[in-house]
Amino acid sequence: MGLPTILNQLTAAANGGSEHGKILLSLFIVLAAGKLMAELSERLRQPAVVGEILAGVIIGPSVLSWVQPTEVISTLAEIGVIFLLFTVGLETRPSELFRVGGTATLVAILGVIVPFLAGWGLLSIWPRHSWIEAVFLGAAMVATSVGITARVLASLGILNTDTARVILAAAVIDDVIGLLVLAVVSSLATGHVNYGHLAVVAVLAIVFTILTSTLGSRVIRRVARPVEELRINHSLLIFGLLLCFGFAAIASLIGIAGIVGAFLAGVALSEATEGTTLHHQSEALMEFAAPFFLVNIGLRFNPAVFGSAETIWLASIVTVLAILTKVIGCGIGASRLGLRSAIRVGVGMSPRGEVGIVVAQIGLSLAAVSDAVYGVVLAMALATTILAPPLIRLANQGEAPTLAEPAYEDELRGDIG
Amino acid sequence: MGLPTILNQLTAAANGGSEHGKILLSLFIVLAAGKLMAELSERLRQPAVVGEILAGVIIGPSVLSWVQPTEVISTLAEIGVIFLLFTVGLETRPSELFRVGGTATLVAILGVIVPFLAGWGLLSIWPRHSWIEAVFLGAAMVATSVGITARVLASLGILNTDTARVILAAAVIDDVIGLLVLAVVSSLATGHVNYGHLAVVAVLAIVFTILTSTLGSRVIRRVARPVEELRINHSLLIFGLLLCFGFAAIASLIGIAGIVGAFLAGVALSEATEGTTLHHQSEALMEFAAPFFLVNIGLRFNPAVFGSAETIWLASIVTVLAILTKVIGCGIGASRLGLRSAIRVGVGMSPRGEVGIVVAQIGLSLAAVSDAVYGVVLAMALATTILAPPLIRLANQGEAPTLAEPAYEDELRGDIG
Repeated sequence: MGLPTILNQLTAAANGGSEHGKILLSLFIVLAAGKLMAELSERLRQPAVVGEILAGVIIGPSVLSWVQPTEVISTLAEIGVIFLLFTVGLETRPSELFRVGGTATLVAILGVIVPFLAGWGLLSIWPRHSWIEAVFLGAAMVATSVGITARVLASLGILNTDTARVILAAAVIDDVIGLLVLAVVSSLATGHVNYGHLAVVAVLAIVFTILTSTLGSRVIRRVARPVEELRINHSLLIFGLLLCFGFAAIASLIGIAGIVGAFLAGVALSEATEGTTLHHQSEALMEFAAPFFLVNIGLRFNPAVFGSAETIWLASIVTVLAILTKVIGCGIGASRLGLRSAIRVGVGMSPRGEVGIVVAQIGLSLAAVSDAVYGVVLAMALATTILAPPLIRLANQGEAPTLAEPAYEDELRGDIG
Repeated sequence: MGLPTILNQLTAAANGGSEHGKILLSLFIVLAAGKLMAELSERLRQPAVVGEILAGVIIGPSVLSWVQPTEVISTLAEIGVIFLLFTVGLETRPSELFRVGGTATLVAILGVIVPFLAGWGLLSIWPRHSWIEAVFLGAAMVATSVGITARVLASLGILNTDTARVILAAAVIDDVIGLLVLAVVSSLATGHVNYGHLAVVAVLAIVFTILTSTLGSRVIRRVARPVEELRINHSLLIFGLLLCFGFAAIASLIGIAGIVGAFLAGVALSEATEGTTLHHQSEALMEFAAPFFLVNIGLRFNPAVFGSAETIWLASIVTVLAILTKVIGCGIGASRLGLRSAIRVGVGMSPRGEVGIVVAQIGLSLAAVSDAVYGVVLAMALATTILAPPLIRLANQGEAPTLAEPAYEDELRGDIG
């Protein structure tokens, strides 16, 4: 054994496994690259999230290969988007969510129907595609991925507007509908439809959503005081974290997105914890972990998706349709807020993400979807994610920050010595 | 494909992989079990950390097997102890560290020599052990693992005492010495000693430590203002996180513990960021991640270690010696602080951890150490970790909190609605 081996073991010794040294370095690179590109984006008057996603593309396997999309990074990414939605939930009172409930339901339903019909229709007239492939493309265009929008709205300081509330409430409903659409489409592809089980899942998802957003807040207002009197330090933060991860885990196990659970945990806590440090503490957690969520999107970008000219064409058309149909569908749903706000809602609902990709993956595994269409869905999910932030920013120009993050930050920050 | 499969895929769909649902659940269980046991410990007038470690034993493979010590958990554990030492570093001014530098150096050196001699001497007189095995046991008893002590001192609110400063500074020096001891011992076992390389590693470790704790603070005071003027939100927190992970990664790559780098990053930032929200933000990060560090210790507990009666005997003697030799060695080093404080320092330096275990692992891999002695080291590391917190608490009874965490928390917390 030569000294290099010993040195490796020394590194290992100091860290309990040389893996830790490498992991620390990759965490540093993700944070540094993400925030450097975020700063650059802001200076070019683009949303920070675009920079963070591009940072992932640059440091990831597509370009420099400095960081791989490992399980550790993807778990931190999941934790990041969970803290993001939890923090957003903390700023959202249940009553405000219910006030826009009718509009949000309409937004969610029309925002599912219109994209589905567009995706289905497009592949039905496009040459060489089966009806089931057309159905799968429609289903893959349904589910909004609200993480990106939440991040952009928060950084613009306009979470506290009706537009933002409609988007958030609609995204929760959209997720439950998306679950059902996926179940139906999968059943169609396999020929097995068990409506009993389907109904159970639907009922569970709906009951969980309604219970947490109604009873949740009342129960928590009762227990908040005893929680504060526990012996452990920072008991309120610990309580919040337990609700956040507990609800996220339950949501996941029922079949809706973990972030929906985290958002509802935040909403349930919002009134009881107003004015406490929990809000600032959850922001710190979000600031640490959210870059992993955003950079990870870029890390997982695969340029091989754009295999042929036809794929690029189809992907471009699907992306435009994906955005337009949410703007039109959700916009009509939100029309009573006025034209400008309706467009803001539609644009805010346009990013797609994991759910669409997994719909296409299931289609692929059932041989209902071709590699080309799977690639188209991947490209559409990434393109809508990248295109949405500038569009959201554009649509919200002139909207005064009602919950100004920078101002609140200054107030807390104190002076630098 | 039946509906159960579809339901699995639905869960997968909602999470981008059904793995995420399971991971969220295990994170919830770790947090919930850790904090429940922490609360219970506090009520039994035991330190919270003991409860958190025991929680890991209970939910881990030894008892319930609800949670496995996966790579994700161990990464969160590493992040947890990094945030812990970073937060402790933020409360420590470089000038205060230098003021106790002489005492700390003496504490570190005597706290290495005395345990080494004891471990070596014990196995030399114990039947059926080679001289090299005795040397390895001595080396495995050298390195203090400061994470546990830092956590206990912080929760007692006495980080801001000379005792605490001596412990922290001595732990940094101890880590550098531990690195060199390991290198020498490994060289002895293999017969290859490359003093040139050894010197390079030593110089790198010492230069890094001195540079960051001297120049670091001055440089950071210069850049803090421009950092605050960046466009990205929470730029000071981001800057702190980058230093924390950057220094931790550099320390790891040189061969000293990542937590030493994180601590030095905190120290370098402490003066420039005094009175800013960075301190509260890093505490939030620590509160989230530290339970993973503590629970993970319990998760990795292996009852198979106690194979035979002789092993249990030897492990008990080694554990008592491990604590006594640090109390005596470090105590003599700290004698000019007075007897009570000297004992506090010695007890605070007594927990051993990863480094000792890895020394034994290397010995095992070189066939210099038997399975039995490896088991003894494992048991000693765990036993000192569990025994130290109550001893630290006992030794510090009557010490008034100078930096009262609960008080500071109240001040920030505001009222619950």
